[in-house]
Formats: sequence, structure tokens, C-alpha cells
Amino acid sequence: MLGVCYYPEHWHESRWQRDAARMREIGITHVRIGEFAWSRIEPARDSFDFGWLDRAMEVLAGAGLKIILGTPTATPPKWLVDECPDILPVDVEGRVRGFGSRRHYTFSSERWWKESARIVEALARRYGRHPGVVGWQTDNEFGCHGTTLSWGPEDLGAFRDWLRRRYQSTDQLNAAWNSVFWSMEVGSFDEVTLPNLTVTDANPSARMDFWRFASEQVAAYNAAQAEIIRRHSPGRWITHNFMGFFTDFDHFAAADSMDIAAWDSYPTGFLEVFPFSEAERTRWAETSHPDVAPFNHDLYRAVGRGRFCVMEQQAGPVNWAPWNAVPKPGMVRLWTLEALAHGAELVSYFRWRQATTAQEQMHSGLNLPGLDELSPGGKEVAAVAPEIAALGELPPVEPARVAIVMDYPSHWAAAIQPLAADFRPMELIFRWYEALRRRGLDVDFIRPGNALDAYDLVVVPTLSEVDAAMEASLAAFGGVAQIGPRTGCRDRAFAIPDNLPPGPLADLTGNRIIQVATLRPGLGHPVTGDVTGAAVRWREHAETTATVLGRFADGGPALTRKGGVFHLLCWPDGDLLEAAIGQAVTAARLPVLALPEHVRIRRRGPLIFAFNYGDEPWPLPEAGDLILGDPLVAPRSVAIWRSRPR
Amino acid sequence: MLGVCYYPEHWHESRWQRDAARMREIGITHVRIGEFAWSRIEPARDSFDFGWLDRAMEVLAGAGLKIILGTPTATPPKWLVDECPDILPVDVEGRVRGFGSRRHYTFSSERWWKESARIVEALARRYGRHPGVVGWQTDNEFGCHGTTLSWGPEDLGAFRDWLRRRYQSTDQLNAAWNSVFWSMEVGSFDEVTLPNLTVTDANPSARMDFWRFASEQVAAYNAAQAEIIRRHSPGRWITHNFMGFFTDFDHFAAADSMDIAAWDSYPTGFLEVFPFSEAERTRWAETSHPDVAPFNHDLYRAVGRGRFCVMEQQAGPVNWAPWNAVPKPGMVRLWTLEALAHGAELVSYFRWRQATTAQEQMHSGLNLPGLDELSPGGKEVAAVAPEIAALGELPPVEPARVAIVMDYPSHWAAAIQPLAADFRPMELIFRWYEALRRRGLDVDFIRPGNALDAYDLVVVPTLSEVDAAMEASLAAFGGVAQIGPRTGCRDRAFAIPDNLPPGPLADLTGNRIIQVATLRPGLGHPVTGDVTGAAVRWREHAETTATVLGRFADGGPALTRKGGVFHLLCWPDGDLLEAAIGQAVTAARLPVLALPEHVRIRRRGPLIFAFNYGDEPWPLPEAGDLILGDPLVAPRSVAIWRSRPR
Amino acid sequence: MLGVCYYPEHWHESRWQRDAARMREIGITHVRIGEFAWSRIEPARDSFDFGWLDRAMEVLAGAGLKIILGTPTATPPKWLVDECPDILPVDVEGRVRGFGSRRHYTFSSERWWKESARIVEALARRYGRHPGVVGWQTDNEFGCHGTTLSWGPEDLGAFRDWLRRRYQSTDQLNAAWNSVFWSMEVGSFDEVTLPNLTVTDANPSARMDFWRFASEQVAAYNAAQAEIIRRHSPGRWITHNFMGFFTDFDHFAAADSMDIAAWDSYPTGFLEVFPFSEAERTRWAETSHPDVAPFNHDLYRAVGRGRFCVMEQQAGPVNWAPWNAVPKPGMVRLWTLEALAHGAELVSYFRWRQATTAQEQMHSGLNLPGLDELSPGGKEVAAVAPEIAALGELPPVEPARVAIVMDYPSHWAAAIQPLAADFRPMELIFRWYEALRRRGLDVDFIRPGNALDAYDLVVVPTLSEVDAAMEASLAAFGGVAQIGPRTGCRDRAFAIPDNLPPGPLADLTGNRIIQVATLRPGLGHPVTGDVTGAAVRWREHAETTATVLGRFADGGPALTRKGGVFHLLCWPDGDLLEAAIGQAVTAARLPVLALPEHVRIRRRGPLIFAFNYGDEPWPLPEAGDLILGDPLVAPRSVAIWRSRPR
Ligand SMILES: [Zn+2]
Ligand SMILES: [Zn+2]
Ligand SMILES: [Zn+2]
Repeated sequence: MLGVCYYPEHWHESRWQRDAARMREIGITHVRIGEFAWSRIEPARDSFDFGWLDRAMEVLAGAGLKIILGTPTATPPKWLVDECPDILPVDVEGRVRGFGSRRHYTFSSERWWKESARIVEALARRYGRHPGVVGWQTDNEFGCHGTTLSWGPEDLGAFRDWLRRRYQSTDQLNAAWNSVFWSMEVGSFDEVTLPNLTVTDANPSARMDFWRFASEQVAAYNAAQAEIIRRHSPGRWITHNFMGFFTDFDHFAAADSMDIAAWDSYPTGFLEVFPFSEAERTRWAETSHPDVAPFNHDLYRAVGRGRFCVMEQQAGPVNWAPWNAVPKPGMVRLWTLEALAHGAELVSYFRWRQATTAQEQMHSGLNLPGLDELSPGGKEVAAVAPEIAALGELPPVEPARVAIVMDYPSHWAAAIQPLAADFRPMELIFRWYEALRRRGLDVDFIRPGNALDAYDLVVVPTLSEVDAAMEASLAAFGGVAQIGPRTGCRDRAFAIPDNLPPGPLADLTGNRIIQVATLRPGLGHPVTGDVTGAAVRWREHAETTATVLGRFADGGPALTRKGGVFHLLCWPDGDLLEAAIGQAVTAARLPVLALPEHVRIRRRGPLIFAFNYGDEPWPLPEAGDLILGDPLVAPRSVAIWRSRPR
Repeated sequence: MLGVCYYPEHWHESRWQRDAARMREIGITHVRIGEFAWSRIEPARDSFDFGWLDRAMEVLAGAGLKIILGTPTATPPKWLVDECPDILPVDVEGRVRGFGSRRHYTFSSERWWKESARIVEALARRYGRHPGVVGWQTDNEFGCHGTTLSWGPEDLGAFRDWLRRRYQSTDQLNAAWNSVFWSMEVGSFDEVTLPNLTVTDANPSARMDFWRFASEQVAAYNAAQAEIIRRHSPGRWITHNFMGFFTDFDHFAAADSMDIAAWDSYPTGFLEVFPFSEAERTRWAETSHPDVAPFNHDLYRAVGRGRFCVMEQQAGPVNWAPWNAVPKPGMVRLWTLEALAHGAELVSYFRWRQATTAQEQMHSGLNLPGLDELSPGGKEVAAVAPEIAALGELPPVEPARVAIVMDYPSHWAAAIQPLAADFRPMELIFRWYEALRRRGLDVDFIRPGNALDAYDLVVVPTLSEVDAAMEASLAAFGGVAQIGPRTGCRDRAFAIPDNLPPGPLADLTGNRIIQVATLRPGLGHPVTGDVTGAAVRWREHAETTATVLGRFADGGPALTRKGGVFHLLCWPDGDLLEAAIGQAVTAARLPVLALPEHVRIRRRGPLIFAFNYGDEPWPLPEAGDLILGDPLVAPRSVAIWRSRPR
Repeated sequence: MLGVCYYPEHWHESRWQRDAARMREIGITHVRIGEFAWSRIEPARDSFDFGWLDRAMEVLAGAGLKIILGTPTATPPKWLVDECPDILPVDVEGRVRGFGSRRHYTFSSERWWKESARIVEALARRYGRHPGVVGWQTDNEFGCHGTTLSWGPEDLGAFRDWLRRRYQSTDQLNAAWNSVFWSMEVGSFDEVTLPNLTVTDANPSARMDFWRFASEQVAAYNAAQAEIIRRHSPGRWITHNFMGFFTDFDHFAAADSMDIAAWDSYPTGFLEVFPFSEAERTRWAETSHPDVAPFNHDLYRAVGRGRFCVMEQQAGPVNWAPWNAVPKPGMVRLWTLEALAHGAELVSYFRWRQATTAQEQMHSGLNLPGLDELSPGGKEVAAVAPEIAALGELPPVEPARVAIVMDYPSHWAAAIQPLAADFRPMELIFRWYEALRRRGLDVDFIRPGNALDAYDLVVVPTLSEVDAAMEASLAAFGGVAQIGPRTGCRDRAFAIPDNLPPGPLADLTGNRIIQVATLRPGLGHPVTGDVTGAAVRWREHAETTATVLGRFADGGPALTRKGGVFHLLCWPDGDLLEAAIGQAVTAARLPVLALPEHVRIRRRGPLIFAFNYGDEPWPLPEAGDLILGDPLVAPRSVAIWRSRPR
């Protein structure tokens, strides 16, 4: 199913009808509206103007479009900000972040919660049972522009309350944070300060608690909106549009109150901001790297507990990266089919028509700026829609045989305490994902603590705190587990475990880590043995009772195995990653298909999709029943075939 | 004519006489004084001390020096700042910019306008008819140190007033800014906020308006000073000393109230801060690049409507660049003659004597620090002065055959909305200028909308908004026009034109631009056809009805021609720039003389000047009547010859 | 003697006894405690809890450990900060630096001085005559985290008072600062502002005065603590633990009130933050550069007027550098013996046991995190302790034959007025030190103005202000002096000297510097003559009456000699540095022993120590009486032999 993001409030009412008809013409069935329209819905306090929205929805629904209605809480209007300026967030340097763009609220403001509930309730009451409405989107891109954490008085108050609930007494707080260190002890919760603007590093336990608090606020705020909507809008699903590669809050928790996860897919933009090498960025500039969108599809499928959609799909150049390429012809079609291959229930393009003004005036849409005329991306959408229709209903997504454990707090831990300036958990996870998919494997992501039984191989690239659930699931797991560096190195209070890292995984891995070395660029620790390569960035000095598959020059273990548990005690360079993955895949008896750098495949039930991101055609590796495309997959094209029984 | 900047208040009165005599001895005829001396002219409110200045002027004028008197408004004294702290500017991060250096005022403060008028009036009254005074300089280097824009309450108030006048109603404002986007609508002008400290990008239309407002303030403030001076000082010219490569306000508008433009020429300093490559910076470190000073001479000649001078000429190392070279021997003489070749009416060196203290203590002058002894640069001045005298009156400057359109708001547009991190309009304009001059061509700059008839070739490197005047002048132009990228892409409200870019130039160029790609470093789009090379940084995807002279690999046009109008749809790499310029120059039937990298020529009436910035001698290309120098122009030397009739 | 930093307040009382016993077991004799424990000593105002500290000291002293007691002023507790928030420092951007880490006080707060005296007095009274206490440490690492300078109202008030005392009248102040420049004159001391948040550079004389003021405050504050301690603790020595390569205040002055200097030695951490090249950083990542620790040993021996110790010795990875290596095996032993070779009276490791929490949880200690189990570094300590014991009492340290003059204000001058972005005095001094030691020479540092008679060669790498004492000591010196660039270029008021640089050294050097060129990366000025190489970064254009040993291409002198005084008029590249040092060493008739990059030697009386920082063994250069180690010094090992009479 295809959708589009539409802003009726941006265009003269006389154009709505034609817009809706043209959407239908090119095969679009869903339309998302409303998520930034507060100033039009409520131009002044309690003075609601639903007329225009009523009419817009009538036009859209009348054209047969299914409506996804957004709550407009990402953009509180000026009159509201002037009335209650304490809803404004404060940046880490202590400056109020003002009105004039979006996301100008802090999750800590009680007043904001009230105002937010008020507008959501008004909207849900009015449109909850509207026949055209099939789903809801809460707010927009939580955390965007660094808005997960805010550092003002409202935040301090809410954090103190959170600490009171968590620790009951300052004795407990002081103990958990080891506040005696540097005489940081507090005598009452009102003495707690935010962990910013300190002379040197603030207490990492305090910072981790502040981040947890902030992450929980996002989830609670999202749940509060969902609760209101559910009350008034039975039978409609609720989602939130998350962002790619974004880790500032725990997305699993934030999605607990959602029926389905959504994310906003801007492959070429992400290429510029994800820590790729400059060579990679230049190579993939006009297609994006072939794992960028899939990684997030697979991740958000997990976040949505099996259900996800793409709420904003790039259909031309974006406007927000340092450089903004025009995607090569074919890429909009490719990305669309790729989303479906990974299980997307909806691909909704951003946006129907390029605006001629305001902050996103250089962000492409399906129509040229201000015009009723398809853009190059719009034409690709018009072309792919009937192809998708021809595919009919796609088979259900089955679990992959490989899973990667994704943990959000591990990202916060590395940000709070880098130790190596280039230890970026997301990059490590991505490199595992890429390497697995280069072997033709499908990959699921899983939330720490979820059951692992479905999988032959589970990779834990890095996982700062191994909690009881995670420990139990790994202990119970009969397949092959591949544990990575910086795992089990902190407990809930952000302390090093009593038995040293990997803490709860000591027995499972057979290892005890006594020292950590971080390795500057240019410095590698070579590894030899059954696996070869080198540690870069990070190396753990461990004592081991496990089988050593690779050793450092000083004799220390680099990769160990104990039963089905492999433990990689470093950030691997490319060779070592390949070698380690080879060991794990062999142990798990996974069938592999070596793919070139520019090709990826993905299964959905009996269907196999192949995506060619490169400039060379790619011959299909097996003679299946071709459903779409050619046996020689053209550059930037797609093939789908039905697998014959393995 | 040669001048010098002198600060009598810095030196004991007993030294003035000797200073003046020595100025005259080395051939200096003009002296600029007074522009930072407020605290001495008015040590406390209304307690004026003109005695010292009377005497200083008597000494200087008595020695036969012509005086240029500066208004001291760049340095309000401490007692004034303490009395009215609201004159202080506020930086973009919201911090007051305090007393202790210079330019510590905002153009928005009404109080400041009053105080400023008061001191200017006092000075003009007293010295307006002084026989030694031949001219006035208003203030000093408007906008220096990022002082064009200020972000405080005074600025907000003045901006709101400006918006009221411009838009009459908030409906008009909301429409022009498309404030409905992200619910940014305001219900009254008092709800408008400054476009800083927002959570993410502020509205680009608002930012452009704020910049226009600020630019207009500079012009109005300058005009206000001029009006006062004119009332009291008949027959004297008025100027302001602008800065090189500086674009934060519209210099054409700011100079409208001036009789002549002036600029401050620091060639080696500019080399370090202009976006040259590191290789260029190292190569030209001790001479500067041979187009740096000429570019600004030609530009300020346009700003001054044909009249300009150099108010501060570097005569040794400066102190403010990341590295500060000593200019190679010969360069002070070369720069001086070069300024004359480009039409300067006065070259005034900065400064008479190097200070031994304070912020500019490491800035060279014509005399060694604190001493009555010529510096190396001072000795060059003493040597070049009689050479200039021997030249007699120089012929008038005639219009060149090539003109470049220079537009200030285009720079603001790119700063507000970069899209490519390396799209810097000034760099593009400079590369056109350099390439034209490498062909031995003289170049004029013109203000958008001015008549183009005088020229054979007009280059518009980039021009964000093509207004009606500019459109008309181009439509009426019978010569060859070369239009560049990012032209006609915004209207007055900063909206994309209804007919897409190049907007008003659609018919003239035959092009319609439907998408823009920005190209990261390392990514080029090759061009083939009558011209070859590649697009870098920026490429426009266009539909065309014009003749295509160069195409991209995907078939899109890179360079088109329709009648006399060439349209380059990208930022050209070196090869493509050369090819495009070749096309334009050929079409315009301009005679070319290929010059080496280190040589430039410049005509003034029948005279031809050659400047050798390199280490190799350069043989004159024709047998003219040599007026200065040798047929083999020595390194860092100059030749002047009289052209024989073409 | 070996010591260790211990925090009884971090560990349950039940563990103290065992900790103390284990310290003694591995050969530790001294223990530093107490320096961050204010919140435990005084949990609320005037409510002292000495019980735990009494018991801890009883346990430690009971085990035979000698106690160094720290005053806890680096960490004022929360109740105190809440009571008197004006003790908090303010950063250069005007933001209060809050509670939550350490060093959150400004030296300018009168209230802070009172509170600080109160706690020091309480501690000194109680433990001043404790039989276990052998010494005191004041505060901790003055200036760490940029806390020398603070920019708040307290600082402004104190600075005004300091100026009043220094200048008596604003006329004097205005004259010294040349405030007439840019109308910066003040009419009363209350009009003075701090030299931050100005529109452009503040007055360098004002900045230098502010820095001097701040430096004097550190010294006075340290002296005030010492005075209190001395009153109550007769017979105990007092020290402060300074930091490596730290120059924000004058350490000579700050140590005047101390009995012995101490410094905190973190060789691998310093490697990452000192301006080494990336290649050097990678090469030495796991050992540090062989001159890093020695440089500071020698410097702090001078700061301590012949007496110094290492109060915090790295014994494993640190946690605060961008990358944090595990030192290679052998390095902890090597660093320990090296400190002794340079004269350290005590080497005290940081810290007894790695913490499992708080800001330094990833900083290694002698025991594994939270455990009673030696870390790899702890094991090296246990091994080296008996080796040291076997050496017996070491002979006294004798003066070296070479000295380097180290001047703190020169660093401030370069920071205030860089002129070349890469002129870093410490780097220049270090390169001289390294080059001298590569020739097998021992090096002393000396305070400007101290007598030079003991030396054959005195190097003044750079010395902004040559005061009367320094001038006199150089004039009286009969040996060889090597003067470097940027020397004698400012007087006390930060003015260029009347006779131009090198000011007071004009006669001694025979030079007068009329211009300074700074040379961007890639730009060098070649030097030929008796010495060859090139100037980089900085070059002085001088007139000379001295013998010219090396000339620039333009004929200007690069290295001159007049009698015993060599004057290097530039920042030398590697070749020129080698050539210049060759000249000086030959002139001084110093015996040299060329050492490889990875080996250094150091004499202590008749003993010679050799330290091998490399991967290759090094054969001893002479057949001495070996006291420790082998004739072939193994990688990362040490040899000590007794020199036979020269
Ligand atoms: Zn979005
Ligand atoms: Zn200037
Ligand atoms: Zn320390």
C-alpha cells in the first residue's frame, strides 16, 4: 500500500479535489495529514476551527483515500508558547530553545502535558470515528533536533521527582551514584542538580539516570496520547513516525503503546550523517548504501513487534544534509519495493507537493514545487504502483534465522563515557548487519530479553548492561551466540560488575575482563589463530577458560568460544569481522550466498527479492520462478522470484 | 595621490610636527584622522575637548596635508555605554557583546542614533569648514566582527516595526512567510520573534527579511551621518571605508549616500580568510593572489558609482590572520600602482607608525613600532611616490567590455539555506573574475538592474532573486549574457517562483529547473559536448528548449545557449569554467591575451599596466611605449606602457 | 620511596585493614588520603565527622604507612555551594560552572577564602601533629579543567582591586594599557570590565594583567593554605600536586610557599593531548614519548627548588584521553625508576584500587575494580619495589650542565596574541629538551632570573618579557647562551620595547628585530650557511651586528652569534634545530652521546640510568659497573650502572 504526506493547510482549498484525484490516479491509497496544523485548528485558545479540516477530510475520504491523522503536538502555536513559556525546552548550555521552528517543548512540563492532552482530545473526539480515518500518528519524530533531553528548571523538577520515586532516600541515591566520590553527596532530593554545566565530567551514573528518565518520559508521553486517542477512536491503529538510526530514547519502550511502528526513510540523507567513511559516502551518494534503509526496516519491524510501515519515504532530494543528491533514476522504485520486501505495511511518500517556501522548500515531493505536475520521483511512484498491485497480497514475513540484539541504553553509555572517541555502538551494529547481509542472510533485530529460540544465530554486537532477562534468554538459548565487546560491563547503577565484565555472562563466555585498551587511529592489535585480522578502536584484556580461536601478540584472547557462545573481545577490523562471522555462521550451519557490495537479497515467505544498488547488472544466483524483473537484474533495479524448496 | 592613517591621540603632541613633515617628505598628501577618538573628543558627557584636535589639525594642515576626518562612532566610550547599555549589540547566541574593543553598538538602538548624531553634529559643526578638511569618513568598517546583525531586544523591536511597515497586517506577513508551515503563524506583530535560538532552522523567509532589515539599517545609519556632515561641511566629499570581500549588507545601497566609495585593502590577510585552497594560500602567501586586490578595486569602483579610493592599504604584515606573512619586497609598490590602474583616487596606507601596544600592536605601519624610522613598507612608499608623481595625471577609467553582476542578497540566501556546504557565491564570482582576467580582460562589476548596454559580455555568476529591473536590463541587452546556477530561484518573499527557476529568466534562457542536486566533495557530474568538464558542488536538473552545448551523462543540459544568452546549470570545475568562458568570450568577440597565473594586466584609458606577482620575469606581449618599468617585467614589479591604437 | 593514593571513604571500613596490609606487602610506604572528602568530614555546616578519618588514619599508620593528608578544597560540598553560590566559577562565555564534579570555586571569592581557611584549619588542628602524618597536599591540581581564570562578578571585583593596587590611578592604568586606542579609556576603576565577551579582541595588556592577577591568586591561595597548615603541623612538609605540561599559572610562584613540588604523571594521557604529530602519537601510544615524563620531572624539580615527587603515577590505562591505551608490560616499572633517576623523592601511584563507579571508574589502579587483587600495573609495582629497596639510598641529584629557561607568562602571551596559529611555546621548549636529551645530555630547568653560573649551556627557547633579573643573569653569564625567537618582545605593560625586540637583549645578541613574519603550514624559509634547514611558523626580520651563522634567501640572519650568545631568529624545523643545537653544544664543549629515538639516559650522581622505550634491545655504550639490568637493555626495560670517572 502506498501513501503520501499531505498538508491541505498549505494549499488553497480549491486545489484539494484535484490533488486527491491525482493521488488516486497514481495509485496512492493512504494520506497522512494534520501533524503540524495546530495554529489552524486552534488559532487562539479554545477557539477551534475544524471547518477547513472537516472539508479537507471530506474531499480526501471522498476520493477514496484512507486518512492517517497526526496530532499536531510537535508545533505548539505562538499564543500557547506566550501563555506558558515554561513549556520551552532548554539546551545543554542552558539557553531556552525558542519558538520559530518545531519541537519547542520539553517533555518535563506538566503544563505541556495538559495542553497536549487538550488538543489531542479535541482532535480525537472530533475525528475519532470519522469513517475516512484508519489510523493515527502521534506527534512527529520524537527527539528530532536533539529534543529528547532538555536542561531547564522544569526538567530538573521532574528529574528530582523521578529520583525520589526510584531511590526513596538520598542515602540510596548517594550509594547508587557513589556520590562520596568528589564529595558529590546530597542531603535532600532538592539538592540534586542536572548533570550539565559542571566544571568537568558529571557523574556517569547521574547522566545515565537522567537519560533513562528522559527516555521514559518520551514513552509515557506517547502512551498518554495513545490512551486519549484509543478512548475516542475505536478500531483505528496508532503509530508514531520514528527516525532512522536514532537512539536518544528507547524505541522499544516508546512503541509499547503503539499498534504498529513507523519510521521516516531518507536513505541519501542518512548516508551523509551516519559515520560512513568519506569514500563510502562518495560511492553511494546517489543511491545510499544498500543496508541503510533495510537496517531500519528490520529494526522498526522489531520495534513494532512485527508490524511497521514507512511514514515518510524519500522520493527525491532532501534538503537537510550537508550535501543533498538527486537519487539516481530507479531508486525511488527500488526503495519502495525494498520496504515491502522487509515487511512494510505501507510506504507513504514525503510529500505530495514540494513547498515553495519555509524551512522545507528545497525538500522534494511527488509534485514539482507548487505545481500539479509529477516530479521525477512522482513519476517513479506512478510506475511502481501498478507493479505492486500486480504482485497481489504479499506472503507474511517469517522470522529470519539470524538476529541481532539492539539495546538503546548501550548508546547512551558510550556517549556518556566514550573512552575511545570512535566507539560508536550503532556503527558496530551496522557493520555486523552489513556483513551478515553480504552473505545473503536475512536479519531480525530483537529487544534484549526477548526469547531467542527462533534463531540459529544471535549476535550481540555490544550490550552495556546485561539484565536478568537478557542473561536468562542467552542462558536458555540453544543456538549460536556471538557476543561482542563492551558487553556486561555495567550494572543498572552504571557500576562495573562485582565480578568484572562481562558480569552475568562470565560463565557463559568463560571470560573475565581485567583491563580495556582503546586504540587510536593507526594503532591496531593483530590477531592470529583460527581467525586473523586486528583489533581497532577497542580491545579488552581478558582471562579466559574458553577455547581461544584468535590471540593477540601478547597472548591475550581476541575471540573465544565456549559451547555455542563466541566472544569477540575487541572492535574488529574488516578482516577480523569477516573471520568471526565465518566462525559463527559455520557453527550455526547457516547457508550463505556471497553477494557483491552493491547487491542485497531479502526473503518474504517463499518470495526472494534482489536489489541492485550498483552500476553493473547482476545475474540471479538460482533459477527460480521470476515474478518481477529479469534474470539479469539491471542497475538500480529489482527482481522478485519464488524460491524453490531448499 | 597617497595618504596615511594617523592617530595624533596615540602620540605625544611634541611628535606631531615631525610626523607631519616626514609624511610630506615621503610624498604623502592626505591624512585620515579621528575615527576612534571619541573618548578624547568627549571625555565625559557634553564635556568636549577639541583643543588637542584643533592643534593636531593645525599641525597637519600647516604641513600641507589634506585631512580626511573620521566620525568616531565605531568606538562609543565607556561613560556612554554605562549610561545607555542598550546600545550594546547581542550575538546570535543571545549574549551581550560588551565594551572593550570596537563596534559595540547595534544599529537598532534609537538611543544610539541620537548619541551618534550628537557626536557627528558636534564634529561637523566644528570642523565642517576647516580649510584643511577635504573629506569625511563615516564610522569605520561597518559590519566588521559580525556586527551587521544583532539579536537583542532593541533589534527585535526595530524588526517588528520594519515588518509592520512592510507588511501592514499579520495576514500579509503570515502569507509572505508561509507561516502556516509548522504552525508558525502570529496574531500580531508583537508575536514575531527573532530567527535565532530556534530548535531547528528558522523560517528562511523570516531570516531573509531580518537580513534585509539589517542591511537597510546600515544604509540608513550611514545616510544619517552623511546628512549631518553635508549640512555643516559644504564642498567636502564623504566616504566610508568598506571591507574586502564583505557581503553582510548591500554595499550599493550603503554607498548611495556617499560621494565616493573607499575600501581597506589587506591582500595577504584576505588570502588567509577567503576560501582559497591550502595550496593556493601557500603559493601566494607572501604576495597574495593576483586577483584579490583587483577584484575589490573593481567592485568598489562600482559601489562608488565610478569613484573609489583605498582608505587603508597594507604596507607590511597584518596581525589578524591565522598566519601573517611579511609581504615580499616590491609588493607595497605593486599594490599601490595596481590600485591606481584600477582607478583609485587615493591610496592611503594603514598606518603611519606601528603601535607598541593595544590590539593592533603587531600590525605594521610605515614607521617601525614607536619610532621615527621608516619600516620596509615605508621605504617602498617613499620610493613609489616620486614614480607616481612622474606619471602625472592619469587618464580617466573607461568602462570595461566585460561586466559581472554582483548581488549582495544572493550571499545571504546561500548562508541561510546552504544546501551544499561549499556553495559560496563569492567564491564562484571570484573564479569567474579570475578566469576573465587570466584572458587579459578588464572587468567591471555592476549592480543588478543597472544598464548593460556598455558591455559586450555580462556574466551573472549567480543571482538568487532576479527582480524586475534586472529582468528588464537583461531582456534589453544586446550583447552576450552568461547566466550561472542558482539564478532566479527565489522571489522577494524567498519563495521558489511559480514557474520554477530561473523564474523571470525562463524565456530568455529557455530553461526550467525542476530539481537541484548538490554534489559532495569527490562527486562530479561529467559534461560532454561542445564544452567538457564536470559539475561539482551544485547541479540543476533542467528541461530546456535552448541549444545544448554541454550535456551530463543522463542527457540533462549543463550549458545551454539561446540567442546571446548562455546558461550554465551547475558549479563548474576548472575545465568546464574554462570551456564556458571560451564560449562566451568567443560569442562576444572579445580579444583575449592568455596570461600566466602570476601576471595580470589592467587598462586605464590608453595606458596598460602589467603586474607580475610571480618569481619569473614576464616579457611584455607587445611593443608599446614604455612609461614605467622594463620590457621584461621583473618579479613583483610593474610595467606601464601606452597602447598603440587597436 | 613508593606511595599510593587511597580513598578510605570509598570503601567499607571493614576493608581498610586488609588494604593497608597489602600496601605494605608490595612495598608501599606512603599513602595520600583525604583530598576529596569534605562531604564526609563536614556533612553539614560545622557538623564535623572526624571519626571515620581518625579510624582510617589509625589503621594506615598502624600498618606503618606514612600519611600525606590532602586538604579537600577541590570539592566544596553541596550544602556549602547552596549557602554561598558566589563561590562558583564562571566560564569565559559567562556561564556559571556548577556543582557536580570538582574545582567548582573561583579564587576571587572572599567568601571562599574564608570557608576554605575554615576547613583547612579544622583539618590541620586535628591532624597537624598526628604521628602518622608526614606531609600535606594542598587542594588538588590547581587550574585543572580550565579553572585558573574565572569570569564572574567576584572576579571582576577582585581584578579591579588588584588594578587599583597596581596602578593607583586610572591615568596610570590608561597609560599602561594605552586605552586611548579605540577609546577604551576608563574614568574610574569601577569602569573596568573583564576582557571577555568583547566584540573583537580585547586589549592584550588587559588580558595579560588579568592573567597575571589570576596566577597571583593561585599562588596566594596556596600560600594561605600552607600558612594555616604550618601553624598547626610542625615538622611536616607541604606540597601541591601540579599537572604535566600545565602553564595557566606561574608554577614557580605557586610553589614558593611549598617545601617540595609534586606533580601527577600520566604519560600516555599526555601523549594524546600534547601537540605531538599523529605519527608520533601512534608510534608512542603504548609507552608514551620518552621525554614526556622526564620533561616534567626536570621541570618540577626546578619548581620545587630541587625537591619534587610524583604524587599520582599512572599504573595502567587512564580514562580521560580521546584514546586510552594499556601501557605495555614493563612501562610502570620503567616510569617508576625513571622518576627516581630524575630525583623524585617519592613515587605515589594513582590509585590503590580502581573504582567501580563515578567519574573515574575507567581509571586503572593497583588493584582491579572493587577487588583485592593486583592489576597488571599493581604486579609491576610489587616487582619493582624490592629492586628499588636493593638500590639503597640514591646519590643526590647534581646540577646538569645544560639548562632551559622556562617562563610561564610567555605561554599566556602567545595565547593572547597568537600571530601564528601554531606558535605554542611549550612545543618549542619540548623540542629543545628532546634534542638535548637525544644527545645524552641531562637538562635542568631554571626560573627566569635565577643564577646561571652552574651551567655550560643555557637555552632560552622563547621568553616574551626579559625582566631586569633575567637580563642581569644573562649579562653575568660566562657560558654559552642560546636565545630563541619571540624573546624580549614585550615589556611589563605588554608593550613592544622602545628599542624593539629583543629589547634588553639588544646588546647581548647584537640584533634588532624590525618585523615578524608568521609562516603558514607548507611555507618555509630556507636557511643556508654554517647551519642549514628552514624557518617554519615564525621568522623574525632582524638587523644584526653579530656574526651570522645562517642566512635566509633574502640575506636576513637566521642564527647569529655574538660572543657566547647564539640567537635563533625563527622557529626551526628539525634540521635547523639540530644544526643550531650542534653549534651551541660544540661552543659549550659538552660531551655528547647520540641516542636512538627510543632510548634516554639520565645521571644521578655517579649513577647512569638508561631507559629503553622501544621494541629493540639497546647495548650499553660503555663498560660501567652494572647495578641493575643487562648490558643489552631489553625493550621497555632499564639499566643502571656506575659511571667510571670521566
Ligand atoms: Zn520528517
Ligand atoms: Zn581597519
Ligand atoms: Zn588527578
